[in-house]
Amino acid sequence: MPDPFVLTLSCADRPGITARVTSFLFERGGNILEAQQFNDRMSDAFFMRVEFDPGAISRDAFRAEFAPLASELAMEWKLSLRDRPRRVLIMVSKFDHCLADLLYRWRIGELPMKPVAIVSNHPREAIEHTDLGDLPFHHLPITRDTKPAQEAQVRAIAEQSGAELIVLARYMQILSDEQAAHFAGRCINIHHSFLPGFKGAKPYHQAYERGVKMIGASAHYVTGDLDEGPIIHQDAESIGHADTPDALVRKGRDIESRVLAEAVRLHLEERVLLNGQRTVVFRG
Amino acid sequence: MPDPFVLTLSCADRPGITARVTSFLFERGGNILEAQQFNDRMSDAFFMRVEFDPGAISRDAFRAEFAPLASELAMEWKLSLRDRPRRVLIMVSKFDHCLADLLYRWRIGELPMKPVAIVSNHPREAIEHTDLGDLPFHHLPITRDTKPAQEAQVRAIAEQSGAELIVLARYMQILSDEQAAHFAGRCINIHHSFLPGFKGAKPYHQAYERGVKMIGASAHYVTGDLDEGPIIHQDAESIGHADTPDALVRKGRDIESRVLAEAVRLHLEERVLLNGQRTVVFRG
Amino acid sequence: MPDPFVLTLSCADRPGITARVTSFLFERGGNILEAQQFNDRMSDAFFMRVEFDPGAISRDAFRAEFAPLASELAMEWKLSLRDRPRRVLIMVSKFDHCLADLLYRWRIGELPMKPVAIVSNHPREAIEHTDLGDLPFHHLPITRDTKPAQEAQVRAIAEQSGAELIVLARYMQILSDEQAAHFAGRCINIHHSFLPGFKGAKPYHQAYERGVKMIGASAHYVTGDLDEGPIIHQDAESIGHADTPDALVRKGRDIESRVLAEAVRLHLEERVLLNGQRTVVFRG
Amino acid sequence: MPDPFVLTLSCADRPGITARVTSFLFERGGNILEAQQFNDRMSDAFFMRVEFDPGAISRDAFRAEFAPLASELAMEWKLSLRDRPRRVLIMVSKFDHCLADLLYRWRIGELPMKPVAIVSNHPREAIEHTDLGDLPFHHLPITRDTKPAQEAQVRAIAEQSGAELIVLARYMQILSDEQAAHFAGRCINIHHSFLPGFKGAKPYHQAYERGVKMIGASAHYVTGDLDEGPIIHQDAESIGHADTPDALVRKGRDIESRVLAEAVRLHLEERVLLNGQRTVVFRG
Repeated sequence: MPDPFVLTLSCADRPGITARVTSFLFERGGNILEAQQFNDRMSDAFFMRVEFDPGAISRDAFRAEFAPLASELAMEWKLSLRDRPRRVLIMVSKFDHCLADLLYRWRIGELPMKPVAIVSNHPREAIEHTDLGDLPFHHLPITRDTKPAQEAQVRAIAEQSGAELIVLARYMQILSDEQAAHFAGRCINIHHSFLPGFKGAKPYHQAYERGVKMIGASAHYVTGDLDEGPIIHQDAESIGHADTPDALVRKGRDIESRVLAEAVRLHLEERVLLNGQRTVVFRG
Repeated sequence: MPDPFVLTLSCADRPGITARVTSFLFERGGNILEAQQFNDRMSDAFFMRVEFDPGAISRDAFRAEFAPLASELAMEWKLSLRDRPRRVLIMVSKFDHCLADLLYRWRIGELPMKPVAIVSNHPREAIEHTDLGDLPFHHLPITRDTKPAQEAQVRAIAEQSGAELIVLARYMQILSDEQAAHFAGRCINIHHSFLPGFKGAKPYHQAYERGVKMIGASAHYVTGDLDEGPIIHQDAESIGHADTPDALVRKGRDIESRVLAEAVRLHLEERVLLNGQRTVVFRG
Repeated sequence: MPDPFVLTLSCADRPGITARVTSFLFERGGNILEAQQFNDRMSDAFFMRVEFDPGAISRDAFRAEFAPLASELAMEWKLSLRDRPRRVLIMVSKFDHCLADLLYRWRIGELPMKPVAIVSNHPREAIEHTDLGDLPFHHLPITRDTKPAQEAQVRAIAEQSGAELIVLARYMQILSDEQAAHFAGRCINIHHSFLPGFKGAKPYHQAYERGVKMIGASAHYVTGDLDEGPIIHQDAESIGHADTPDALVRKGRDIESRVLAEAVRLHLEERVLLNGQRTVVFRG
Repeated sequence: MPDPFVLTLSCADRPGITARVTSFLFERGGNILEAQQFNDRMSDAFFMRVEFDPGAISRDAFRAEFAPLASELAMEWKLSLRDRPRRVLIMVSKFDHCLADLLYRWRIGELPMKPVAIVSNHPREAIEHTDLGDLPFHHLPITRDTKPAQEAQVRAIAEQSGAELIVLARYMQILSDEQAAHFAGRCINIHHSFLPGFKGAKPYHQAYERGVKMIGASAHYVTGDLDEGPIIHQDAESIGHADTPDALVRKGRDIESRVLAEAVRLHLEERVLLNGQRTVVFRG
């Protein structure tokens, strides 16, 4: 049996889209394994994700035959192999708990990815608790003056390694607007805060000072405004008066790791579609 | 614009079901408002729920025209008006927190139902904390000897009132197998325990004795085995060593109320489909 | 056996406070039922709450004998009867779900309070879904011009009714700084948002627009800045892309009701101590 | 300043225990950093945990002077250095996610422990995803016939390495009653189920078959009955109809890892006291 395909699409809503797309699949021998759609009645937009056994049709043939329908309905669409590991570049600074978590999940086969490069603004020795194995590691220090050159290097590494997704796994540098635009829609950041609660630096200390009773973390696509991109996933936990800022940082690590891993999994499985400043997330 | 319809169906999975159903709708001028499907690859079964504006077609015409397709695919299916309040019979004993919660949600328009009868094995005075307003109240005491007769009365009230759903809102009597069979698929119970953890009587006291660190509640369809029907919704909360059985009962009330209300809402909106001992729940 | 007392206190931390307070109790025949303390090592402050059977000592005698120790350690302290229902004034506008929830909990004996007045800026008919029974209801409309006079009326009602706690149960008016100061430390608001995320009006619509994946609510003491008082309790829930602003409002009602009820319970049981902008919450 | 001490104790409840214990500390120059007590009014038992700066007194002197009071009140008690890393033996079979998680937390200084041995019934190569570094690894295969001998080896390793805590990190063997008794009160197991829901083998498959809507995990002290020891910590998560048994296993890994790590942290910090079949857990 051929590898399953994943088709994702969005367009303006109108009657008959589901019928036309699923009939298209059926007529070519496709067999749906999983399908979701969302009719956004607030914005009259339509979103769909279909996993299917393609039968005899090739990806190229599918694309060629689907293009006229996609064009007629003014779709944004993407067809990909469901099970092909996506190539991922991971960026990190000194805190490596998200990196360690992502690599462990990759090693046991939980995340369908192939890490192609680790980039850090700190030397390899700074990542002291994580086994990087043979993964290519790039130490790209950054200062205010060298930022444009460093970002160009990141883009070059991304290009040469064929990276499809950039994960900022507690990379404590703000991307320039140009860099954010370059990686638009394929760069995920973990914000160690429950957005939009505590933007900016030291959110756990901010949370402590404010005396909140829950903390959380947010995984989102990176845009020019670091704290404002479309949110993919969030989680939160209760805290108490005895939790010092250090305790919040400790509890935060767990939330950050699992929120980022879930967002990366959803993205790798093509389950996240952009809807303006918002996201449509088709869980299985 | 005519009132939206809801179509729910299940059948053995095979290629083309979605295409055929959605094309059927499209060809008759239907416009999908919300649609979900589930291909159960463990059992090769298919489940679907579609909300749609029917356009010019009437319900009777739809039913007549859809029947051949449903028959060909050996579907179990149901077509209903989405916004018509379902007629609901609520049964209760002495603890009325679930009843009070359901009635409040009904009064503010949150639950699309019309309570047609309240049945209790205790007199109306036992429901001292809930405003029953003008709702018909039936005191049907029960003993071992009168159980068959009492259950026949309940069936008669359900029939005369046109009840489509029976909600056991902390009704502390076990239905006979016959009664459970009679109301199969349209009788929801709140089990004041996190099934299958603590079946039987006094589950909070059982939980206390066992020293668990979480308690919960389960809403499920009633079958002959009271604690074993298909589960619709569950929730749980953390507890601590200082929580006495009384404190567990207090915390449990909150969980029970919201778990039952959510299960009732899901059922009323035709979002719950049976899948053997399990349920498929299509949230919005 | 006499009714149990609750002693709460806070002061600068130093060695021996617990020993001196508990020895004081022991020497007078007191028997501790529940005790908690918190040494805030960030601010070097000490907080304590003790429930105890007082033995033969009266409240007045206790107060007189405890005063020198309290004075020496520069304590803020309070001694009260644990089981005496506190007198509560509830303010509400049109949305009555929090009011209904509080009154139900009161009626079944879950909240140790005695509602002494309901105040609304809308007429009694606006509270159409809640059974107010015989509770005194005060319709105090408010406009920009009449605000000082209306607030004076509220203060008069609070005084005449002996209200110890003012609960803003979705009272959609901002208290003046004077009013907030007047009720400082004994006025709880439910903010229908997960503070500090979405301050100001229509937080659920703000949350929808921002595309967050969780919503929540915050119960806090009222200060001059409505959205900034010390937080007592918060909770949050996951939402999805299909949740419209209306769905968020519906889900929010549940969170608001239970967060406010929990904060009110904690306050009524003397479990909340102020720690600057933060709170110390001694759960049982 | 000397290292802080932790004193934990339990005894029958009676008036004055707190006063006597805290006065004892105060008179010897001790300064309380954190203290909790629990008066179990269901069983009339008393539990206490105190962290304190000991001032000039040594541990031996403290023990000698405290012994008469402890004896008079028939206490079970323990005095230890708060910050001394406890020596831990970790047992594992093939699934190493809990092991990897524990070792990462140890490496970043989150868990105050010193792993002294890793024991597996499988060879080192079976632990393929976790960096064991220089930790002593013992491959102790087990069969029905060799079980007594293998367990004796485990006891010998525990003794020689000075292990204070034994962690069963998905060690898929049932300890004999003798072994469980030998390690009573210092052996923690992660049960990959929400006890008492699904005991025995393959709990996620059992959960799938039953159609539950939440899964969880339980960390507990090991007793002769593997699934019945006192529970330290539990957590649970919602699941849906589309979650296959494999998906439950994946989601379960996250819950297991964090529940076990939390239970181990609580134990290492001397925060868990046994109360018959139940536990008292003094969180910070």
